[in-house]
Order: sequence, then C-alpha cells, then structure tokens
Amino acid sequence: MMNNSFFSKFGPKEPKFFDYLEQVSEILLAASDMLQGALDSKTGEERMEFFRKIKEKERLGDELSHKIFEELSSSFITPFDREDIHLLADKLDDVIDRVNSCAKRIAIYNPKKNNPYEKSLGEIVKRDAECIYGAMGELASIRKNASKLKQNCKTLHDLENEADDVYETAIINLFEDEKDGIELIKMKEILNELEKTTDAAEHVGKILRTIIVKYA
Amino acid sequence: MMNNSFFSKFGPKEPKFFDYLEQVSEILLAASDMLQGALDSKTGEERMEFFRKIKEKERLGDELSHKIFEELSSSFITPFDREDIHLLADKLDDVIDRVNSCAKRIAIYNPKKNNPYEKSLGEIVKRDAECIYGAMGELASIRKNASKLKQNCKTLHDLENEADDVYETAIINLFEDEKDGIELIKMKEILNELEKTTDAAEHVGKILRTIIVKYA
Amino acid sequence: MMNNSFFSKFGPKEPKFFDYLEQVSEILLAASDMLQGALDSKTGEERMEFFRKIKEKERLGDELSHKIFEELSSSFITPFDREDIHLLADKLDDVIDRVNSCAKRIAIYNPKKNNPYEKSLGEIVKRDAECIYGAMGELASIRKNASKLKQNCKTLHDLENEADDVYETAIINLFEDEKDGIELIKMKEILNELEKTTDAAEHVGKILRTIIVKYA
Repeated sequence: MMNNSFFSKFGPKEPKFFDYLEQVSEILLAASDMLQGALDSKTGEERMEFFRKIKEKERLGDELSHKIFEELSSSFITPFDREDIHLLADKLDDVIDRVNSCAKRIAIYNPKKNNPYEKSLGEIVKRDAECIYGAMGELASIRKNASKLKQNCKTLHDLENEADDVYETAIINLFEDEKDGIELIKMKEILNELEKTTDAAEHVGKILRTIIVKYA
Repeated sequence: MMNNSFFSKFGPKEPKFFDYLEQVSEILLAASDMLQGALDSKTGEERMEFFRKIKEKERLGDELSHKIFEELSSSFITPFDREDIHLLADKLDDVIDRVNSCAKRIAIYNPKKNNPYEKSLGEIVKRDAECIYGAMGELASIRKNASKLKQNCKTLHDLENEADDVYETAIINLFEDEKDGIELIKMKEILNELEKTTDAAEHVGKILRTIIVKYA
Repeated sequence: MMNNSFFSKFGPKEPKFFDYLEQVSEILLAASDMLQGALDSKTGEERMEFFRKIKEKERLGDELSHKIFEELSSSFITPFDREDIHLLADKLDDVIDRVNSCAKRIAIYNPKKNNPYEKSLGEIVKRDAECIYGAMGELASIRKNASKLKQNCKTLHDLENEADDVYETAIINLFEDEKDGIELIKMKEILNELEKTTDAAEHVGKILRTIIVKYA
C-alpha cells in the first residue's frame, strides 16, 4: 500500500523534528496572542506583566531550538537536510524574539498614548503566527500538503506587504501629529519592531518555499 | 583549442545563474540611480514618487532572487557551489533592500531640510552599485578576470571606509547643529541607513573574495 | 601512548585555525578593555581617541577573519567542519564589530553626561570577552576541556540575561529622568548597542555549544 507521506520511510523515530517545529510555532502563537494584551494595556504595570509572560515563552522557545540543534548534530538521518531544519528552526526563533522585543519596548518605553496603527500591526503579527502554526502542522506530510503550504507562504508574503503599508501610513501620521519628541521616539521604535516582526515571519515563508521546491 | 572560461565545460545551460546575478545587479544599479533623485527631491510628493519606483525595483529583485533559489534547488550541476551562488544572490538582494529602505525613510520621514552629507553618502552608494554591476559581468569568466574582480572587492572595501568617515562627520555635525529633536532623529536615521547600504555592498565584496580564492 | 587531544591526528599543520581564533579573541579582549576607557572618558577628544584605537583593533580582526576564510577555502583538511570554523570566526568578528560600534557611538554622539548603567553594561561586555578568550584557548583540546567549555557557554548565556535586566532598568530610568530629547536619544542608542554586544557574545556561545555536541 502506498503511503502518502514522503517521510514515512524514516520510521517512527524521525517525525520528532516536525513535532519540535510545531511546538516552537505553538509558542509563537501563544506569544503573539499575549502581544495583543500588551497592545491593549494602558498602564506600565499591565504592560510589564505581559512582557514578563512573553519573555518566559521566548525562553521556552530558545530551549526548544537548542534541543533541535543538538539533536540535529547527533542524528544521522533527518527527514530534510540538516541545514534546512536548522534554518527553519532558526528563523522561527527569530519571529519569537521579535514578538518578545515588541512587548519589551511597549513595557519599558511605556508610551503615554496608544496608537491605532500599533494595534493593526499587532493583529497582522497574530495572523502571521496562525499561518506559521498551520504550516508547521502540514510539514510532516509535505507532498500531500504542498499546495496548502504554498498558500501559507503566499499569505506570509501578503501580510508583510500589508504591514508595510500600515507602517508607512503610521510613520507619516506620527511625524505629522506627535509634537512631543520623546513620545514620538517611543512610538516610532514600537511600530518599527512590529513591522520587523512581519518581515521575520515572511522570512519563515521564504525558507518554506525553498523546502517545498526541494522535497514536495 | 583551449577555452579561457573555467565554466565552459558546464555547457550552454549553466551560465543562466550568471545572467540572473547580472540582472539583479542591474536592478541595483537602476535603484541606486533613482536614489539620487530621491536625495535631490525637496517635496514629500517627489520623494514618495521616487520611493514607489524604487520599491517596484526591489520587488523585481525579490522575484529574481526567488527564481535563483528555486533553480538552485532543482539544478544538479551549478557553476559554483550552490551555497556560494545562494549567498551571493542573498547579499545582492540585501543591498537592494537597503537602497529601498533609504528611499522609504526619505519619503516617510520627509525631513524639512536636505543635508549635504546625505548626498555624499548617496553618491558612494551609486559607486558601489556600479562596481557590483561590473563585478557580476566578470564572474562568468572568473579565471580570466580574477585580477579585475579583486580590484572590485578592494573598491567596495575602500568605499565603505570612505562612507564611514563621511557618516562620522555627518553625525558629529548633526548633533552640534540641529536643535529640532524631531528633525535630528529623521536625518540621523536616513544617514544611518545610507551608511549601512555601503556595509551591505562591502559584504558582497567579501563573498566575492571567498569565491575568487576557491575558483579563480 | 594515547594523546588526549582529539585533533592530534591532523598533524602539526592544522592547529593554525585554533591559533587564529585565539588571536581574534585576543583582539576582542583588547578592544573591550579600551571600551572601559571610552566609557570612563568625559571629553569628546578622549572618547574619539579611544574609538580610533578600537577601530584599529577592529580592522586587525577583520584581516584575521579574512585570512581564516581564505585558508578555509584552500585547506582540504580542517580540524572541524569548514562550516563550523567559518561560523565561529564570523560570530567572533560580530562581537568585535559591536564593541567598535559602541565606542563609535560614544565618540560621535558625545553625550553631555555619563550614565551609571552604561558602565555596568560595559563591564559585562568585558566579562564576555574574557570568557570567550578563555574558551578559544580550550578549543584545541575540546575533548579534554568539554566541561570547561560548557561552563563558558553557560556564563555567556547568564551574562546576556544580566545585561538584559540592566538594560531594561536603564531605559525605564532614562525615559523617566532625561528631559532633553536629544540627550535621551544619544544615551538610548549607546545603551542599546552595549546590550546588543552581549547578545553577539551569547551567539558565540551558541555556536560553541553546537560544536561541543558534534566533536567533544
């Protein structure tokens, strides 16, 4: 009987890499969810609380990535090229780092006002996380899911373009409206980090596209 | 009859990678040319117009890079190690991204005054682009052109040092002269991005140097 | 007679890579020492003087890294995978670049006041450099020194966490206390670069951990 999964021949031990990658993307999803809380917060205490929680997630992600790197080094057979799993785990970790960095800036800059574009960018980050989480679940059966995965890559690309447009409008308005130089700096840096988070998410999509070409 | 080109043995199908790289460097050249226009502009509309045009180029560059990555993944024989072409295309793409980012900052920060150092850095970026474009044209016959290519790498290195000096003087003057904090932030970030563009161009030179050592 | 060193079989010619890496880490150590001087300086002249000295070190580091890359390309046998030595040299170079960038910001921003947190972060950078220098000395006998090397990696990780905490407190205080927007920008950017230097040092630790898993 034909098995639809390309990697079935690697036996029961190998799918752990996919499990790990899926777990990392689950951490990203949780962190991006908490980021919405940070963006809705209005006091320094609340913001700091969300940042602490996201930081914990970020450390979990770090440990998991380290575990992936260690197992990659000691495994002789891996479902994909070592290099591809390494890159994918690395880029996933970058997205979590960026989410952490967004929450950190919100907490330690503690801006006086919230900004509507902040919230829009935060929502794009969350849609990125959902899309990546979906993609990681499809990776173990890449041949069967190739077209779904390609759609995920396209979504990450489109979300980055959307974020670009929101960011540009946000900065133009900020420099026109905000007369307090210090508040302007704070908001500019928060918006910038949110936009870079969507870049990092698109980068995951780029790695995925290369993997699809090679293995699907 | 001896053929001077090292890669002639790969037959007629392989030089496409060199064509692609040359096309990417042509996009860089066009974008860096438009950057001069953005730097000479004095109104927000003009600046936004140049940015839009550069952004189009950046997307063309992106598509071309993606095509290179895809073909690399599916080609069994490549003129250089897959890894080297990948790195080179990646670093070329970084330079285009930086040029795009310079134009974006000029457009969305829309500073009240132009700054003479901005213009000098912009000219260095253009000389970088010309040098890289020249180098990409010599790559297909790397053995014959090794000494020209080495000269290109040296030029990229020297231009980066020159940009470093201009940037340092620019920032010292800016912090001394500009009393409007918000205008200061805008100009500092634009100058910084221009300087980083010359770093990215030098990085292309570093990859080239490694390739020369391996294949020339 | 058994030889304790894993790499003894490579003969007398190979340990040069370890010598080079150790030399790069010695440059880092010297630069981070000078950074303390830059942080203690109170005049623009003194700061510029320290920056010039550190910049010289940075260029030495650059040349040495280039030598490593060149020799890697032309060596057929290397003690570790080519890729691992390349990455390690690259990440070491990043730390030196960051130290140089810290000194540059201190010199060209030339802030009116010194900040106590600046000094604390500078000391963490120095402890990073000492730790990395120690690790590079142990690398040639990685099997014998595996547990010492693991301890070094842990130290780099802990120092980065410590720097994170100092940085957060520093920024919160800065935004509360500094009423001069321009001075605030200067100090924020200096503190940020110091913190990123400790990230770069931790990155060296991450590469080391991968190497330990593979070869120790």
